[in-house]
Amino acid sequence: MIYPRVALIGLGLIASSMAHAMRAGGLAGEIVGYAKSAETRAIAKELFCDRVTDSAAEAVKDADLVVLAVPVGAMGAIAAEIGLHLKPGATVTDVGSVKQAVVDAVAPHLPAGVHFIPGHPMAGTEYSGPRSGFATLFQNRWWLLTPSESTDPQALARLRQLIEQMGAKVDTMDVAHHDLVVAVVSHVPHAIAYTMVGVADHMRRVSQSEVIKYSAAGFRDFTRIAASDPTMWRDVFLTNKDAVLDILGRFAEELFVLQRAIRMGDGDHLHAYFTRTRAIRRGIIEAGQDTAAPDFGRAVPTGKEG
Amino acid sequence: MIYPRVALIGLGLIASSMAHAMRAGGLAGEIVGYAKSAETRAIAKELFCDRVTDSAAEAVKDADLVVLAVPVGAMGAIAAEIGLHLKPGATVTDVGSVKQAVVDAVAPHLPAGVHFIPGHPMAGTEYSGPRSGFATLFQNRWWLLTPSESTDPQALARLRQLIEQMGAKVDTMDVAHHDLVVAVVSHVPHAIAYTMVGVADHMRRVSQSEVIKYSAAGFRDFTRIAASDPTMWRDVFLTNKDAVLDILGRFAEELFVLQRAIRMGDGDHLHAYFTRTRAIRRGIIEAGQDTAAPDFGRAVPTGKEG
Repeated sequence: MIYPRVALIGLGLIASSMAHAMRAGGLAGEIVGYAKSAETRAIAKELFCDRVTDSAAEAVKDADLVVLAVPVGAMGAIAAEIGLHLKPGATVTDVGSVKQAVVDAVAPHLPAGVHFIPGHPMAGTEYSGPRSGFATLFQNRWWLLTPSESTDPQALARLRQLIEQMGAKVDTMDVAHHDLVVAVVSHVPHAIAYTMVGVADHMRRVSQSEVIKYSAAGFRDFTRIAASDPTMWRDVFLTNKDAVLDILGRFAEELFVLQRAIRMGDGDHLHAYFTRTRAIRRGIIEAGQDTAAPDFGRAVPTGKEG
Repeated sequence: MIYPRVALIGLGLIASSMAHAMRAGGLAGEIVGYAKSAETRAIAKELFCDRVTDSAAEAVKDADLVVLAVPVGAMGAIAAEIGLHLKPGATVTDVGSVKQAVVDAVAPHLPAGVHFIPGHPMAGTEYSGPRSGFATLFQNRWWLLTPSESTDPQALARLRQLIEQMGAKVDTMDVAHHDLVVAVVSHVPHAIAYTMVGVADHMRRVSQSEVIKYSAAGFRDFTRIAASDPTMWRDVFLTNKDAVLDILGRFAEELFVLQRAIRMGDGDHLHAYFTRTRAIRRGIIEAGQDTAAPDFGRAVPTGKEG
């Protein structure tokens, strides 16, 4: 057992998966949960919490680890509510997809003697809510932590141990660098996927049923990443605005260069560009981040030549 | 047996998969192959062709079905070469990802009495070449045919039978509509994926190794669709220019609206937009075009919440 008592604030996909994983590994003595919705609390009590409470303040009482697993936009209010009820020496972490905004919102409300170690599990599915969690969600996935120079090494080591025993791999990095990295590898790809799905939705000459029928030709991968929780993604874009706008600007420039090459019929440019991007794909396969199987490791093959 | 003799011109992923599928189903009497490269011909002879020839003209001699499986940009030259050597009553089809450009390039070279039925198997992997084919590539995938009003119904029925027995589902549509549909579901998604991968490649502050390491957070799906054959994709964009530029223009407009909402901090707009795109995803799952499993049907889970 790593923490005698863990409080989960917010009981969606990530928190419920953590609860299942902690139970499976015997990592927590007691798991206490709080969510705004009474229905969510009832489901959590039934499925994965030892106890649920009617307030966040009550949930964190005597907890050794407090996990803030609410949308990024709600972190500040929750921190204000629990700050004075935290046990001295407790560790507080969060699971938000951006870190600077969370640090700004949460840190001012936490008393001295509480260890705040912001975190970001890079794991998820397109489903949300308390019934969507499962114990293996974090298996082999990255979980980024953004400790500061003053973070207590022992508190950090303990949290890292919990995360690793839930199956994830831990990396630590600077708060600002985290937000830029995730803008590149996650936030902007999501913005783009949402946009492409939106374009298809607006087409009049190509029917919705055609888009759906032939989606395996490339479009399907966009709908998959455009299907995650709307509230979470709204908050991501509102709170990681600077990095997202930076990368989106670069993307628009790059897209216009490609568009111009298409318009001018510049085949050499296109061929060279596509050859370069292919090399990046090879790097990802070599790094073990994906399978090279012809069916991309899926049960149902998904072709790309459409 | 559906065709006594089939000639495959071009011996890459699609042609080699067709050969494997035709063999597995006993659908062709003899499979003759031609490719520009002597090395490719030797591999084809070893792996899946009964016979290879030194010229395309020789390969199509007495063939009942001729399949043009070369890049779209090479179709016209091949058609000019084989036109006078085709057997009267033979069927000619192609497997190009665009159809109007192929019809324009090929049809003028075909003599009367030869049935030209353009086709587009919506199947593929990120691999290319004569060793990349496998018999089940077309299983449950769409194979679009774009016959004209004057297409011989018997010739069409026979080709359809071959395709269905290779495991694919056939749809027929108008040439121009085909090119617009694939621009939406395939060509523009590919252009965008290539662009995003290109942006990541240019970043200085985020290292290549970070991009690769954390790619599962959404970026990986982009690299997957940005990894296909560069020559094929160059030709796709050069030959389906109008439809691609039309959809890319809409995409850029839509992206700017999203970008502006992020800049202005318009959370209501973002939430409403993300909720709408999520509904399209549901439609694709309901249509059986993808799995709803938490791991998206992959062996290795790929999260989206990064």
